[in-house]
Order: sequence, then C-alpha cells, then structure tokens
Amino acid sequence: MSSLFLKFNYKQDILKRLVLLVLLTTSSIASAQVKNDSTQIRDFYDLALLEGQSYQWLDDLSNDVGPRLSGSKGAENAVNWAKSELEKIGLDKVWLQPVMVPKWERGAAERAYIEGPDGRIEVPVCALGGSVATVQDGLTAEIIEVQGLADLEKLGTDKIKGKIVFYNRPMQANLIQTFSAYGGCVDQRYSGASEAAKYGAAGVIVRSMNLRMDDYPHTGAMSYGDLPNEKRVPAAAISTNGAALLSKMLKQNDKTQFYLKMNCKNYEDVPSFNVIGELTGSERPKDFMVVGGHLDSWDLGDGSHDDGAGVVQSMEVLRLMKAANYTPKHSIRVVLFMNEENGLRGGNEYAAVAKKKGENHVFALESDSGGFTPRGFSFDADPANFAQVESWSSLFKPYLIHYFELGGSGADIGPLKNEAIVLAGLRPDSQRYFDYHHASNDTFDAVNKRELELGAATMTSLMYLFDTYGVIPVNER
Amino acid sequence: MSSLFLKFNYKQDILKRLVLLVLLTTSSIASAQVKNDSTQIRDFYDLALLEGQSYQWLDDLSNDVGPRLSGSKGAENAVNWAKSELEKIGLDKVWLQPVMVPKWERGAAERAYIEGPDGRIEVPVCALGGSVATVQDGLTAEIIEVQGLADLEKLGTDKIKGKIVFYNRPMQANLIQTFSAYGGCVDQRYSGASEAAKYGAAGVIVRSMNLRMDDYPHTGAMSYGDLPNEKRVPAAAISTNGAALLSKMLKQNDKTQFYLKMNCKNYEDVPSFNVIGELTGSERPKDFMVVGGHLDSWDLGDGSHDDGAGVVQSMEVLRLMKAANYTPKHSIRVVLFMNEENGLRGGNEYAAVAKKKGENHVFALESDSGGFTPRGFSFDADPANFAQVESWSSLFKPYLIHYFELGGSGADIGPLKNEAIVLAGLRPDSQRYFDYHHASNDTFDAVNKRELELGAATMTSLMYLFDTYGVIPVNER
Repeated sequence: MSSLFLKFNYKQDILKRLVLLVLLTTSSIASAQVKNDSTQIRDFYDLALLEGQSYQWLDDLSNDVGPRLSGSKGAENAVNWAKSELEKIGLDKVWLQPVMVPKWERGAAERAYIEGPDGRIEVPVCALGGSVATVQDGLTAEIIEVQGLADLEKLGTDKIKGKIVFYNRPMQANLIQTFSAYGGCVDQRYSGASEAAKYGAAGVIVRSMNLRMDDYPHTGAMSYGDLPNEKRVPAAAISTNGAALLSKMLKQNDKTQFYLKMNCKNYEDVPSFNVIGELTGSERPKDFMVVGGHLDSWDLGDGSHDDGAGVVQSMEVLRLMKAANYTPKHSIRVVLFMNEENGLRGGNEYAAVAKKKGENHVFALESDSGGFTPRGFSFDADPANFAQVESWSSLFKPYLIHYFELGGSGADIGPLKNEAIVLAGLRPDSQRYFDYHHASNDTFDAVNKRELELGAATMTSLMYLFDTYGVIPVNER
Repeated sequence: MSSLFLKFNYKQDILKRLVLLVLLTTSSIASAQVKNDSTQIRDFYDLALLEGQSYQWLDDLSNDVGPRLSGSKGAENAVNWAKSELEKIGLDKVWLQPVMVPKWERGAAERAYIEGPDGRIEVPVCALGGSVATVQDGLTAEIIEVQGLADLEKLGTDKIKGKIVFYNRPMQANLIQTFSAYGGCVDQRYSGASEAAKYGAAGVIVRSMNLRMDDYPHTGAMSYGDLPNEKRVPAAAISTNGAALLSKMLKQNDKTQFYLKMNCKNYEDVPSFNVIGELTGSERPKDFMVVGGHLDSWDLGDGSHDDGAGVVQSMEVLRLMKAANYTPKHSIRVVLFMNEENGLRGGNEYAAVAKKKGENHVFALESDSGGFTPRGFSFDADPANFAQVESWSSLFKPYLIHYFELGGSGADIGPLKNEAIVLAGLRPDSQRYFDYHHASNDTFDAVNKRELELGAATMTSLMYLFDTYGVIPVNER
C-alpha cells in the first residue's frame, strides 16, 4: 500500500470519529465524568506510547536477567531486579513475600533420534518440566502412536508395555482462539506420562503444543499425580516437524525404534519470593486492587512473552498512574508471582496471606497471554459488575479494544476468588502466541514495542475505571 | 501461562458463546437464512484454516518469484505465476489485461556516510522510487534538518541552497492506527524533493516511515511534480537509527558534511498486465464484484506483506468459494493489479476498461494493509449499504472481527468509485505493518500463516454476504 490519498482519508476518518466521540460523550448523562474518563485514558495511552518504560524493562528482564525457572539462580536475579526497579518508581511500599517453590533442572541438552532404514535421524526434543531423567545410557524402545489418553485403554497393557507412547493429537487449527486449541491438547502433556505408566510404558513423547510446523520443542508442566517414584517414566516434547516425521516413519515401519536421552532432575523445594509494590489508596486504603503477571519463566528462551510481557505491563500500570499524577482511591498493588509455570505456589501464597491478614481484595487483573496487540479482557465476575464493565466499553473503542467477555481470568489471581471480588485477564491477539510458548524462540525480539505498550495502557485504563467507580459490593448487586 | 484450568475455562466459554449465538440467531426473524449464513461462514473459516492455499501461494510468490517492481523481470514472472495458478483452480475465465507501466531501477546499492569528527560513519540509505541518481562521484554537502515541508519557506533559499535537506519528522507514536501516523508523515517522502529543489537544495534525505528504531531504510514513491528534468535532485530514505544519529551529530556541528551516492535510473514506460480471474454469476452475471490486491512490490525484500498477502488472500477468496461448493449469484472477479506502488496504472486501467465496456461494478474489496490478524473492514459506502453491513456484524463476532467503519477502502479499487458501487478495504491489525513496509525485511518469514488465512476467510465471508444479499441500488436507498 502506497498511494497517498488513502492515508489522508484514514486520518480524516480518525479525526471525524474523535469529534463524534466527544459529541456523543458530552451529550450523555454523566457528561463531565465521561469526558474526564476519556481524557484520563487518552493520557495513559499517550504516556505509554510516547514515554513508556515497559519495553526497556522487558529488554532488561529478557536479556540481562534471562530465563528464570523457579528455584534457579535466574529466578533469584529476577526477584532482585524487579524489587530494585519497583523501588525506583516511587511506590509507597515495595516488599518480598516468601514462598517455597519446586526446583527442577534440565541438565545437559536432551538428545533423541529415530532409527530409520538409512540410519539415525536426530529430532528436536526437550524434557517436560518435572520429568525424571532417562537411564544414563538413554532409553531405546519401540514407539506406539496415540491420539490421546483415551487410546491407552483401547490398546491395553499388551500393546503398550515397554514402549514409548507418542501422543500426537495436534492443536485444532480451525479454533479462532488458540488458547481453546491448547486447552484441547494439553492433557497429553500434563497427564500423558502418569497415564501411560499405568500400562507399563517405558516413556512418553508428546507433540509440541504449537500450531506451526517448525523445529522448536515446547516444554511445559507435567505431573505424575500420586504415581510412586519407581513407576515414573521420562516425558519429552518433540517439535511439530519431528512429530510429523516420526508419524510418517511409523506408518512405513511400526517397529521403528526411538532413542531418548534426558538428564533432568528434581530437587527439594527451595525458598523464593513474590515481589510486591503498592500505591496506597487515598480514600479506601484497606480495599485492595491487584495487577500482576508471573516472574518465573521456563528455562528455554528468555520468557519474553510468557510472562515477561505481563510482568513489565503490570509494573507499568503503577508507573503510568504516577506519571499521569493519578492518585488512586483504593490501594493498588502490583504482584509479580513466582512459580506460575510449575506449581502456582506464588499465586496460592499471595491469596493465603491476604486471607490470613483479612485484606479485602475487590479487584484483580492478570496479564499472562503474551505481549501481543490487546483485544480486551475476559472476566470472572457477577452480572452487576460485568454490566458495569460493559458500560465502559465505548471508552475503549478509540483504542480498538472490543473484547469484553465472561469466562476466566488468570491462573495466579484465581486463588483470590470469592463472592465479592472481580477477576480479569488481559486478552491480547492470540494467533502467534503458541509459536513461542515455552520454547527457545520466546525471546525479546519476538515482542513488538507498540503491542506491549498498548497492552500496558489498556490494563491501566481498566484499573483506573475500577478504581474510579469501584466494584459493586455483594449487597448492592 | 501454563496452568490448566484456565484453558479449559476458555474452552467452555467458547462453547457457551457458540451455543448462545445459535440460540440468538435461531430466534431472530430471518432465522433460517441467518443460520445458513453462520454455517456458510464457518465453512469458509474451516477451509481456510484447515486446508488453505494462501500460505503456500505466498511462499511461492515471495520466495520463487521474489521482488517484482513494475517493469522488472520479477513483475513479468509474477504475472505468469499468477495466471498459471488462477488457471489451476478452475475459474470460468482467466486473462491478462494490458497496461503500460513506469520502469525505474535502483542499480547498484546506495552508499551514504556522515563526516564525523572521528571519521566517516556509514548510515543505511536507499533511493526513493522514481528518484534521479546522484552524480557519478556522489554528492557531498552540508545538511539542513527540517521537520516538514512548511519549514522550507521559513528557512528560505539562503539557508537551503546547495545543501541536502533532511526531513526528520517522525511518525506519531501515540496514534493507535499506524496508517494515520503514516498519513501524517508521508508528504515528506512524496513531495520533499520537488519542494526542496525550488529552494536550490542539492538533494534530500527522508527519515524512514517506520515507527521502530532500527537499521532498515524504507523506500516508497516520490514525485517531482512538473519540475523540469534539470532541476530534479536525488532523494533517499535513511533508517530511523541513521536519522537519530545524524540529528544528534548536527546538534554537535551544524556544518556536518554528508555523502550520498545513488545509482538509480528512470526508463521509458514498458508493457505489463493486470491478472484477472472470474467466477461467472449464476443469477446476475452482468453485475460484477471484485476482490483484489496489487501484484507489484518494491524491489527491497520480497513484498510479502505489501502486497503478496493481499494477492494470495484475493486468490483464496475465489478458491474458497469453489472449495465450499458455493456458486455466486454475481460475477466475482479476482483482480491482481499491476503498479500500485509507483503509478496506480493497473487500478486506473481496470476502471477505464470497465467503464468503456459498460460493465456494472457493484462491489469491490481490496486487501493492501499487510497479512496480519484481520480486525474488520473500512468502507466507502452510502448510509443504506453501510447499515446493511452493520447488520451483518454479529456474524463476524465468533471470529473476533469487530471493525466496521466508514472511511476509505483501497487505492487500486478507488478508480471504480461512482454513485452506485460499495468499496471496502480489509483492515488487519496495523501495529507491526510499518516495521516492514517498503523495506528489505518485508519477507515471507514476517507473515504468520494463521493471520494470513484468517484474513482470507474474513474477506470471503464479506464477499459471500454481498453476493447473497446484494448491494442496495441507488433508487432504493
């Protein structure tokens, strides 16, 4: 696209619509307040896009701190970095909240190959988080391909015993929301090993949760449930291209042998921290509103989308309020949760401490779906509060924020749920998210500065509206 | 983001909303037709995402054909490729429409450096399309920095004569629609040389139309207007990082010298073609609906976003209709326009021929804003037809398509405008577009398969609705 008149048309259109918005809003009942809201929100977006801090923070977190799996030196560095940065922006309080976290290490890089008719073909694999290692010399076994957990019972122990179970059900490409496609597959990764072990499998490999055909294996949490230690078998992810190749070779020879070597290890729990900062409320200091993301990441890549983006956007919410000279009525906290990826210990601990102290939490917002162009929010809320949210939607229209739906919020704020609180999750465009999720290409260069900043401004605007109008209490719904 | 329950919540939410949609639509007045529309549109999306052809086509066009500036061998190859591919999908007619196009060649790579206090500092530049070359030994001159065309008159001939004018007004980062920011800057690129030449400038360099700070110079069309040949001065773009460095050095020394060498050349017009394919209408074969993008690209990169994406999406619209066994009532044409970038000759010729033949065009849709996640459409339409479009918006909601606004359509279909026709332009997410636009990084790897496919399905759905319900004629508005 190059010709000029189109762009000028565009610009005129924007101007026309801005004028229209002002006309519409000034003619409404709550004209003064709506105009203030509109101006205040414009300020947040302008500050985020013209003088934002989030992208520089993400550069520091991704490239200086780097990967930060719970219990690692990287996670410790991330805690120190976040505390130090929050202290620089002039909050009323900054502190660390202790929490014990699991520790698992990948060890030396994994190796896998298919024994083909013309020799060994190396394929990209990585251990799933929490998996046991293979034996020292690696595991060599036949492969049995399945499309999901339900296939195991049909096959039975006879056909599974001693083999590596290969879970190869792909993410469903015609689902528009990629998280739905993920939700339809991830049982293979999470429970695949524990279920296959019951039928005597020697190990499992799982097709990466990735909608793209490429060479990146994607790690992620798995669980052995209550399976005793001696029955636990190694579990790895294989890249989508690797999965396609393996499946093809199995069709040619169902006795194909596979070699897998993994060097990972589980340790005892170790101490770590949630990092918390607070702007104390001017009118309702004992009513808390939380915005957060998770500070830990997987050990592959540097966790820029998952969840470096959510971390720096959450920090930016409080910084933008200060930069705009906005004084919140409620106490607003940024909470950078530890251990979302493989335990949710930070989210559970934050909620447990809040409950123990009798802190009244009325609203919580999480960003943990990548640093892509924001589209809106999903909510876990009662009808009255959700109707209030919907009444705000026109304020977001100039920023192309259109998605306000019930249906889930975020993992780390989930434990805060009670009758009174409203929970929300930022919903960015999801099309590219699983290209990077839990893989070594989730790095700083995969995040676009403007998209990240738009997310931070959108979050700040929602937080501002909840702070201004309050959450409708249970007895007024 | 990793924890499982959230994803399942998401999925349940999707299911709930699908159920709700069905309930809502089946209870509406036109229940049967709406249900059919909904099912038909679902089919288009499923086919595009599960068995789409657009991404493979883009791979071929970008990586096999490559760059295809009007009048080049690449453009000729693109014409042959497109004709051959359209012939494969079983349309009723495929033909080439002759059009004369300008020919300009970049020649050997440009070179530029700043004479700094510690020696020469090379900076990335590229000639603007249509520019004359520098003299054989290159141009060395002082620089005068301006923020736009209006500064020239203030400075006057005394301060400009013999110098290189450096246009450095950046794209405005706080505009949400990046095309508006482009519209606010591109006069520097298009008219900068002709205006500066009037004050005796020796040449111009223009800050690249890019919202990101990086090392890619972005080319694009410029015009000398009616300036006689002997007064034409060379014009180049400089990367945003280069512009920032140059501006900084000018603040330290306003006598800083700049060296620029360009080897480009304008030739006589040469013959080329629009490529056209048609599905002939079953009920109104003499009423035409057009979908298109432009087949030419700039010579840097391979034009994957601009406008390879629009080309393959437009081809995919007709292929998807065939794949879904949908027989259009109107005659639907895919038109792949030649020479959008530096002349619009193809768009003008298509409209001129249509007028001459008395072909009644009722609707035209263009895709020329990149292959990113589609958000909706903008329209150049009368109120009655726009109201009809708005009545369809709920059909698009499951696909997160929410943007239906008046205000411009596309450059190539613009010449078709008359009282009767409805014009529309696909509006993808625009945040990343100017990272790639007219630069050497506009390559195949910058396009995401799903985002491209969603655009094609969204275009097909709009075309289907216009074909089904028709455009409201002038006398019924």
